[in-house]
Amino acid sequence: MGMSRLSGLLLLAALPLAAPAAMVQRPVSWTQGGTTFHSVLVYDDAVSTPRPGLVMVPNWYGVNDAAIKKAEMIAGKDYVILLTDVYGEKVRPTSAAEAQAATKPLYADRALLRSRMQVALQQLRAQARSAPVDPARLAAIGFCFGGSAVLDLARSGADLAAVVSFHGGLSTDDPALAKHIKARVLAMNGADDKGTMGDADKFMDEMRGSPADWQFVVLGHAVHCFTEVGENSPGCRYDARAAARSYRLMHDWLHGAFAGTP
Amino acid sequence: MGMSRLSGLLLLAALPLAAPAAMVQRPVSWTQGGTTFHSVLVYDDAVSTPRPGLVMVPNWYGVNDAAIKKAEMIAGKDYVILLTDVYGEKVRPTSAAEAQAATKPLYADRALLRSRMQVALQQLRAQARSAPVDPARLAAIGFCFGGSAVLDLARSGADLAAVVSFHGGLSTDDPALAKHIKARVLAMNGADDKGTMGDADKFMDEMRGSPADWQFVVLGHAVHCFTEVGENSPGCRYDARAAARSYRLMHDWLHGAFAGTP
Repeated sequence: MGMSRLSGLLLLAALPLAAPAAMVQRPVSWTQGGTTFHSVLVYDDAVSTPRPGLVMVPNWYGVNDAAIKKAEMIAGKDYVILLTDVYGEKVRPTSAAEAQAATKPLYADRALLRSRMQVALQQLRAQARSAPVDPARLAAIGFCFGGSAVLDLARSGADLAAVVSFHGGLSTDDPALAKHIKARVLAMNGADDKGTMGDADKFMDEMRGSPADWQFVVLGHAVHCFTEVGENSPGCRYDARAAARSYRLMHDWLHGAFAGTP
Repeated sequence: MGMSRLSGLLLLAALPLAAPAAMVQRPVSWTQGGTTFHSVLVYDDAVSTPRPGLVMVPNWYGVNDAAIKKAEMIAGKDYVILLTDVYGEKVRPTSAAEAQAATKPLYADRALLRSRMQVALQQLRAQARSAPVDPARLAAIGFCFGGSAVLDLARSGADLAAVVSFHGGLSTDDPALAKHIKARVLAMNGADDKGTMGDADKFMDEMRGSPADWQFVVLGHAVHCFTEVGENSPGCRYDARAAARSYRLMHDWLHGAFAGTP
């Protein structure tokens, strides 16, 4: 019997020891300022242990099947994720042009973006009544536009342990907000992501003026969208290497933030 | 019995299960261009398993007791470290002025620095005959001036898996060398390290022009010397948080480089 077959049998033998995954996708809706938002709570129901909760803001296409699949992959047995709608139920972009139009009013009114993010965080906290979320361990993660959204949640002074931005926009409408940041801030951007890296120096200056714990990681040879499976255009491309590293850095950053260790 | 005493007893009870550490400091000397170099091989002799070998270039004070202590801490049971003398036996700085004078000819003649680093790597490789070094898994790490030294080793096109620079100088005499880099390059600098961060943009541009796998990490609120225990001046200060994180990032980076995984 070859080694690979032997390994396969050992793997099969080991499987019954682990609880099977039972990913739940539970709709969570709320209304703010006359707009109704349809978000999705994603977690593994095979585990009942309370675990950290993450607000997750997807890329500019918003809550769709790809974003749900990504949320499931990240959640695993480790996190309860509120995959967050920041557009409102009527806005479901299916093209880049529609997505850009959807983000435009929020980039133009960052206070509105921040207030929507704050409500999303409250909604995640409220899930502790009916889902295995530990309300003492909350953080937010975001991708592309969603990265801007979670950085703005931190800038709003929200009470959460950490935010992690993946290939996110780094700009702010008000660098002075940084002094309110309570969350540990991790931003990761591709070195060849021209759209976001142009703001890197300003972002670092902003963070230098913040009491918050922060880290900025530049991933060599990656462009925008490095975690977005299937993207393959010159300026927006999935990069398995950068993706794997950035997820590892995220887990490590969140672990430290929740445990109160470096 | 209090918990702390109980923990102490449990710890004592557990100790005999682990092999006791037996750190070796073996002098390794060589001559290059008429200069004799006195380096020190540091590893745990209680373990005989071949393990990765690291060329380690300390800060500008060179090979001294503090550097040996640091090498022992990093080596653990994980690495065999060649704590490398790049000055020559007659140069043992004991003040910042002497240290600056020691680095001056090497910063002025980067080709000389690179050739010394290449010989150091050969010397480490040769240790596989008499120490538990796996010559297929070699890397280099460096601190402050030593960070420049290991980046230059990579720029020389040396055949090693990775280099890791801690609060190192990022400048180069020749950005075109970057196309020869075979090692995975990880550079970590404090956001408030004015002396090195001024070269960050140029360094990233240099690395964008390299085929090498690379990552640049900016550690918030850290200044120069963040891994140097006991340093506490405004521009050169130990930072336990940044140190712990940078060592974790180093281990992770080296692990991936040796395993051929992200």
